[in-house]
Amino acid sequence: MKHRVLICGIIDWAQDDAIQLLGSIAEVLYLDVPDRAAFLQAFQPNGKYDGVVAIYRTNGSARRVGKFDKEVIDVISRSVKWIAQMSAGYDAIDVAACKEKGIVVSNTPGAVDDGTATTALYLLISTFRQFSVGERSLRSGKWRPDVFATARDPTGHTLAILGLGGIGLRLAELAHAFPMRIIYHSRRKVEKAPEWCEYFEDVYEMLGQADVLSISVPLNAETEGLVGEKMIRALKKGAIIINTARGKIIDEDALIRALEDGHISSVGLDVLPNEPHVNPRLLEFPGITLLPHMGTETRDTLHKMEIRALTNIRDYVLTGRGTDLVAEYQ
Amino acid sequence: MKHRVLICGIIDWAQDDAIQLLGSIAEVLYLDVPDRAAFLQAFQPNGKYDGVVAIYRTNGSARRVGKFDKEVIDVISRSVKWIAQMSAGYDAIDVAACKEKGIVVSNTPGAVDDGTATTALYLLISTFRQFSVGERSLRSGKWRPDVFATARDPTGHTLAILGLGGIGLRLAELAHAFPMRIIYHSRRKVEKAPEWCEYFEDVYEMLGQADVLSISVPLNAETEGLVGEKMIRALKKGAIIINTARGKIIDEDALIRALEDGHISSVGLDVLPNEPHVNPRLLEFPGITLLPHMGTETRDTLHKMEIRALTNIRDYVLTGRGTDLVAEYQ
Repeated sequence: MKHRVLICGIIDWAQDDAIQLLGSIAEVLYLDVPDRAAFLQAFQPNGKYDGVVAIYRTNGSARRVGKFDKEVIDVISRSVKWIAQMSAGYDAIDVAACKEKGIVVSNTPGAVDDGTATTALYLLISTFRQFSVGERSLRSGKWRPDVFATARDPTGHTLAILGLGGIGLRLAELAHAFPMRIIYHSRRKVEKAPEWCEYFEDVYEMLGQADVLSISVPLNAETEGLVGEKMIRALKKGAIIINTARGKIIDEDALIRALEDGHISSVGLDVLPNEPHVNPRLLEFPGITLLPHMGTETRDTLHKMEIRALTNIRDYVLTGRGTDLVAEYQ
Repeated sequence: MKHRVLICGIIDWAQDDAIQLLGSIAEVLYLDVPDRAAFLQAFQPNGKYDGVVAIYRTNGSARRVGKFDKEVIDVISRSVKWIAQMSAGYDAIDVAACKEKGIVVSNTPGAVDDGTATTALYLLISTFRQFSVGERSLRSGKWRPDVFATARDPTGHTLAILGLGGIGLRLAELAHAFPMRIIYHSRRKVEKAPEWCEYFEDVYEMLGQADVLSISVPLNAETEGLVGEKMIRALKKGAIIINTARGKIIDEDALIRALEDGHISSVGLDVLPNEPHVNPRLLEFPGITLLPHMGTETRDTLHKMEIRALTNIRDYVLTGRGTDLVAEYQ
């Protein structure tokens, strides 16, 4: 009997690849239940998803079935052994519950590096140069705003990267082209980093030298609110913060206070703590740039991510082992 | 008697430098006439600018005295031998008239390269990724627009640069970091260009391979309307056009037609043909990015430009020869 695999979400670009990768080796089911209750019911004995061993999961599926929290994990662990998350972030999955139940979780790390780092570079340029307020001024019929006194060139300034994983490393390469000075803090020194990436074991020492801080750590219990009052105040006055990771990593109240009193000159945010809700206070600061979580919203990147997650499923089905296991399994 | 030098415009950042550079070697006059008629009158015998040999000119001075057209050149050529324009573009000066009257014109080429190329890079990322429409969607309360089907990653695509001067070469370096493939057309092959910049003698052959075209040629009689129907249609369907040079280099009607019928997927414009007027037709295309001529609007770049133009004046006063002569004198 073929392994049963559930596509929990929509495959936008890699439909053909999905058939090529899985068609001959697995029975592929597609999400066709209306809500969370029906989803959980379908995993019961003789339910339509009974016996599913691997799930391809998109964040979009949460609109129908919610997060993969302990309740979901408890139910699906009857048969599921692998969850291949189709994104870099996997905070919608209760990994501790998965580990307890013997379920492995993979994500799509490399596939998002380019798209997300390009987004960070865009936010960096926009905030340094005040281009967002410039475009809004033009479109409102007022032509150019008076920003030349505050706008700066990224070139020659110092970029601090919090978390030098694939995305952080890719941003380092792009920003080094200006050049900017690149400094970083991670749990440990990254051996494969180029020598011009300067490691700071002490995060506060790094922050004191940063003209701009870019956040590239995953969201988990340890990083929620990590960039709060203490870290923000450790930055130089007038520094900029860029976030393309997850909104909850920043303490939004502390951030807004620092914008209000000018300790931070600007922020560029692709992610917010309660998406799609936007804190209206943020909209009051003219010189900041806000994107609606578009870091990986390109057909090129989404296609790469879909293939990566499908490949993880295929490898598990064929060999019992996949790749791209999330950090908790490494 | 000290040489008389006129600062025609405002020095924003290099006031101290101006005193250091010129204070001991020249009599420095500042623009203090109300309008063009008074300006011309001041150059008459015994006028307040009588005997001025060198002029530091900003484009902002046009608000009071207008362009340096043939009328102005004829009058000031009584004494003026050098005009140091404080910008890269010098289309506000009638260079032919200057040459006829023995006046030399310099500009500030290198100083603007970094700021302008960074602006081009921003417009490139914004148009590829559809970030401008993304931010407007968020700020209008609608969160994320459906752009993932059209948004693309710059990485791996081909950037064509029209005019590989200092700005074009700097953009090439920044975009090569993705990497993008870099191709270019100039009047002749640029010997100092890196080998990964591919030269096309035939501009139409280059355009046929471009995913994005960036314009970096100066505006003059030969380049006005240069990027018109024929060049635009020579681009691949769905290509993007970036302009950080001068608005009049593009035939705006041809551009709008190509946006309407989808031959061009997007444009990123920092310059428009009749600034500060914005053609309202442009505002109807959601996926384009428009900036109000901010290419050099940073304190870092403006300071560099001011020092460069002041240095040209100093060199002329001290040696009778300056540097940074515009192309017509080379």
